[in-house]
Amino acid sequence: MHRTDNGHQARSVEVHREAVRELLADLSGPGRTEELPLQAALGRGLTADIPAPVDLPPFANSQMDGFAVRSSDIPDGGTDLTVVAPIPAGAPAAALEPGTAAPIMTGAMIPPGADAVVPVERAVPDSFPEPGTAATVRLPATASGTYVRYAGSDIRAGELALAAGTFLGPGQLGLLAALGITRVTVHRKLTVLLATTGDEVVEPGSPLEPGKIYDANGTLLEAAMRQAGLDVLRAAISTDSPDELTAMLREHAPQVDLIVTTGGVSKGAYEVVRQAAAGQDVEFLHVAMQPGGPQGIGRFDGVPFVGFPGNPVSCLVSFEMFLRPVLGELFGSPAPRPAVLARLAEPLESPAGKHQLRRGTLFPDGKVRLEGGAGSHLVHALANSNALIHVPVGTSALAAGAEVEVWTL
Amino acid sequence: MHRTDNGHQARSVEVHREAVRELLADLSGPGRTEELPLQAALGRGLTADIPAPVDLPPFANSQMDGFAVRSSDIPDGGTDLTVVAPIPAGAPAAALEPGTAAPIMTGAMIPPGADAVVPVERAVPDSFPEPGTAATVRLPATASGTYVRYAGSDIRAGELALAAGTFLGPGQLGLLAALGITRVTVHRKLTVLLATTGDEVVEPGSPLEPGKIYDANGTLLEAAMRQAGLDVLRAAISTDSPDELTAMLREHAPQVDLIVTTGGVSKGAYEVVRQAAAGQDVEFLHVAMQPGGPQGIGRFDGVPFVGFPGNPVSCLVSFEMFLRPVLGELFGSPAPRPAVLARLAEPLESPAGKHQLRRGTLFPDGKVRLEGGAGSHLVHALANSNALIHVPVGTSALAAGAEVEVWTL
Repeated sequence: MHRTDNGHQARSVEVHREAVRELLADLSGPGRTEELPLQAALGRGLTADIPAPVDLPPFANSQMDGFAVRSSDIPDGGTDLTVVAPIPAGAPAAALEPGTAAPIMTGAMIPPGADAVVPVERAVPDSFPEPGTAATVRLPATASGTYVRYAGSDIRAGELALAAGTFLGPGQLGLLAALGITRVTVHRKLTVLLATTGDEVVEPGSPLEPGKIYDANGTLLEAAMRQAGLDVLRAAISTDSPDELTAMLREHAPQVDLIVTTGGVSKGAYEVVRQAAAGQDVEFLHVAMQPGGPQGIGRFDGVPFVGFPGNPVSCLVSFEMFLRPVLGELFGSPAPRPAVLARLAEPLESPAGKHQLRRGTLFPDGKVRLEGGAGSHLVHALANSNALIHVPVGTSALAAGAEVEVWTL
Repeated sequence: MHRTDNGHQARSVEVHREAVRELLADLSGPGRTEELPLQAALGRGLTADIPAPVDLPPFANSQMDGFAVRSSDIPDGGTDLTVVAPIPAGAPAAALEPGTAAPIMTGAMIPPGADAVVPVERAVPDSFPEPGTAATVRLPATASGTYVRYAGSDIRAGELALAAGTFLGPGQLGLLAALGITRVTVHRKLTVLLATTGDEVVEPGSPLEPGKIYDANGTLLEAAMRQAGLDVLRAAISTDSPDELTAMLREHAPQVDLIVTTGGVSKGAYEVVRQAAAGQDVEFLHVAMQPGGPQGIGRFDGVPFVGFPGNPVSCLVSFEMFLRPVLGELFGSPAPRPAVLARLAEPLESPAGKHQLRRGTLFPDGKVRLEGGAGSHLVHALANSNALIHVPVGTSALAAGAEVEVWTL
C-alpha cells in the first residue's frame, strides 16, 4: 500500500496522466489554432483532417527510363518496333500509335494507348537513338502495367491524406507539398512558465557556497520543453519563501497557458510549492512511480498548474511520463517517443508497488544497459542515457535478458 | 552484378557513406566552432571534451526526509536520541553531537559526524517535532551510509563529463548546468543550398498542368535538414536547362557549405544535374541501394556537392543513409536514429544485390508493418511511416516474423 499524506492510496501513472490530460484539454479548443506555411508548421500538430485534393501520382507515369509500348504489340518471342519521338518530361504525351515505341524517362506521362514500359537495358540496342533519326528497337514481351505508376496509386483525390492530430514532420509536409497544399491549420504553441525552487539552488555561473547546488532542473526542463514545441518563460529561481513564490507565480500567470514548478511538493517540513499554492485549487499527491512520486496538479489563479519534484531525474521522468505524452495526444505535437521491447543487459530491482523508470543505453542488437542506479540525483548517468526503461507495477526484480519496454529519448 | 554506366560495379552503401564523410570532413575544422549559452546550444554537437569542474553531488546529502544520525549510536534494538535543530537547506550543517539526531530534508547536507539517515516514517513518532521544542525520537539500527548520497558519487571533479562529439539534448545540458557551466563550444551550423530540378516539377500552389507534378522534394528535404540542425537556402525549382542550373549553383555556391540537388543524376537522356556539373569534380555513380541508387558526389566550384535522385522517397532515404549519419559523426548533431530489431508483420521481397530500405510502422510490441510498396514515389505511404526497414544485400525475400533492423524516424 502506497499512501499519500491524505491517507489515500497512491495514484497509478495512468490515472495521473489522465488527470493531466483533463487539466490541459481546454487548451486545444477551436480558438487556439493558427494557419501557417508548411515550413513554419514543422513540428506542429494538425487540427483537422486533410483530404487529398488531387490524385497522387496525378497521371500514369513511367517507373523506369525505357520505352513506352502497347503490350499487345509484342509477341512472346519479342519484336521490332519503330522508335517515335521521345515523350517530353512535364508535358502531355501524344497518343502512341500501334507498332511503335516511345522513349520515356522516369516520371514522364504514359502516352494514351501505351500500357507498359520496357526498361532501356532490356532493349536491343540498349540505348536511346538520337531524336530525329529513324530507328527500330527490339523489345521483349512485357505484361500490361509493367513499370507503370497509375494515377491515384499512392492516394486518390478525396481520400484522407493526413488525419487531425497528425504530427507534421518531413514526410507529412512532403506529402502536403506533393498534393499542392501550401498552408495548414495547426495548434498554437503553448507558453509555459517554468519556475525552479529551493534555498539550496543557485544559478549556474554563480559561486557555489557550501550546501548549495547548481540548478539543473531549469536548463533540463526548458530544453525538453523547447524540443517538445513549447515556448518557455523562465522565472528566476525562487527561494523557499512561499510569499516570494506566490508573488512570482501571480505576476506571470496571466501571460502563460501552463505553470510548471520543480521542488517543494513532498512531505518535508519546508515545501515551498505546497505552501505557495495554499488556497488555490491544487492537489498534492503521490503517484506510484519511482522516481517522481510526489506531484502537484491543479490551477493557480485559474491557470493549469503541475508541480514536479525537485531532483533532476524526477523532473525529466515527470515530463516524459505525464506532460509530453499528453501534449502529443491533445495537440499532435511532440511526436510520441518510439516504444520498443529490449532485453536487459543486467539484472535490476524495483519496488513492486511502483512503476519504476530507469535510465539506460539501448543498443541496436536489442539489449539495454542500465546507466547509473535508481537515484533521482544522477544527472551524469542521465546524460549518458538514450532510453527510459519501464519496470511495471508488480515487478520486484528482473534478470539479465528479461524483456522490458523502452522509450528512446 | 550491378554496374554503373562507367562499367564499374555499384558501390556499397558503406563505401558511399564513407565518401560523403571524406567530402565533409574539412567542415569540422577548428575555425568552424562557436561558443554559445546552454539553451542556444540545444541540438548542437560539442567540439571538445568537458571535464567536470566540481564533484556531483558537491557534498554528501540526504536521499530522504528523515533524521541524520551517527549509525554507531544506535544498537540493534534501536534507541532514543535527542532531537537537535533541523539542518537548513542550502547552508553548511553544524557537526552532529553523539547521541543526537538532526531532522534533515532531502538534498540537505549530511552534518559532520553523521553517516546515515533514518527516514521519518521509520521513526517513533513518525514526524518532526516543532523546531525549538525539546524532544527525543526512537530510531531503528541503520547501516552506515544508508540514504546518503556521497560527494562525487554521480561524477567526480576532473572526470570526463561529456566527450567531444556529444549531441547536446536536455540531459546533457542539464548535466552542464548541474556542473555550473553556462557556455559551451559547439560546431557551427552548416548552410546547405537545396536545389530541386525538373521540367515537370512546379511549386505547390501553382496550377497543375497535364504532365506536371508538385515539388515534394524541396519541402521534404528542407524539413529533414532543419530537423537535423542545418540552415537551408532554398533555390527556385530549376528546369531541365543545364545552363540555368549551372548559373544558379554558381551564384549561390560561395554562400554555402554544401550543395544538395534532387533529380537529374541517373542514366536518362535528359539528366540536368549531370549536364550542369560537366567540367566540375563531380562523379555520378550507382549505389547498391533501393531506392536511391543513382547518386552524384564531388565539388561544384570547390563546394561539397551531393546529388540525390528525383523521387521523394529516394531523396529521404539518401538523406537518412548518407548525409544524416555523417553529419552526426562529424559534427555531433543530429543525434543518431535509434536502431532497433523488429519482426516483420508480413513478408517482403528485395533485390538480392541491393540494400533495400522499406518504410513501415513500428509498433511497441516489436512488430513492424510495411507502409506501401517499394516504389520511390509513394509519398503518402511515407507520411504514414515512423520507421525505415533495412533489408541487407544478399537477401531476396523475408518471411513474416523475420527479424529486421529498423531505424525510427
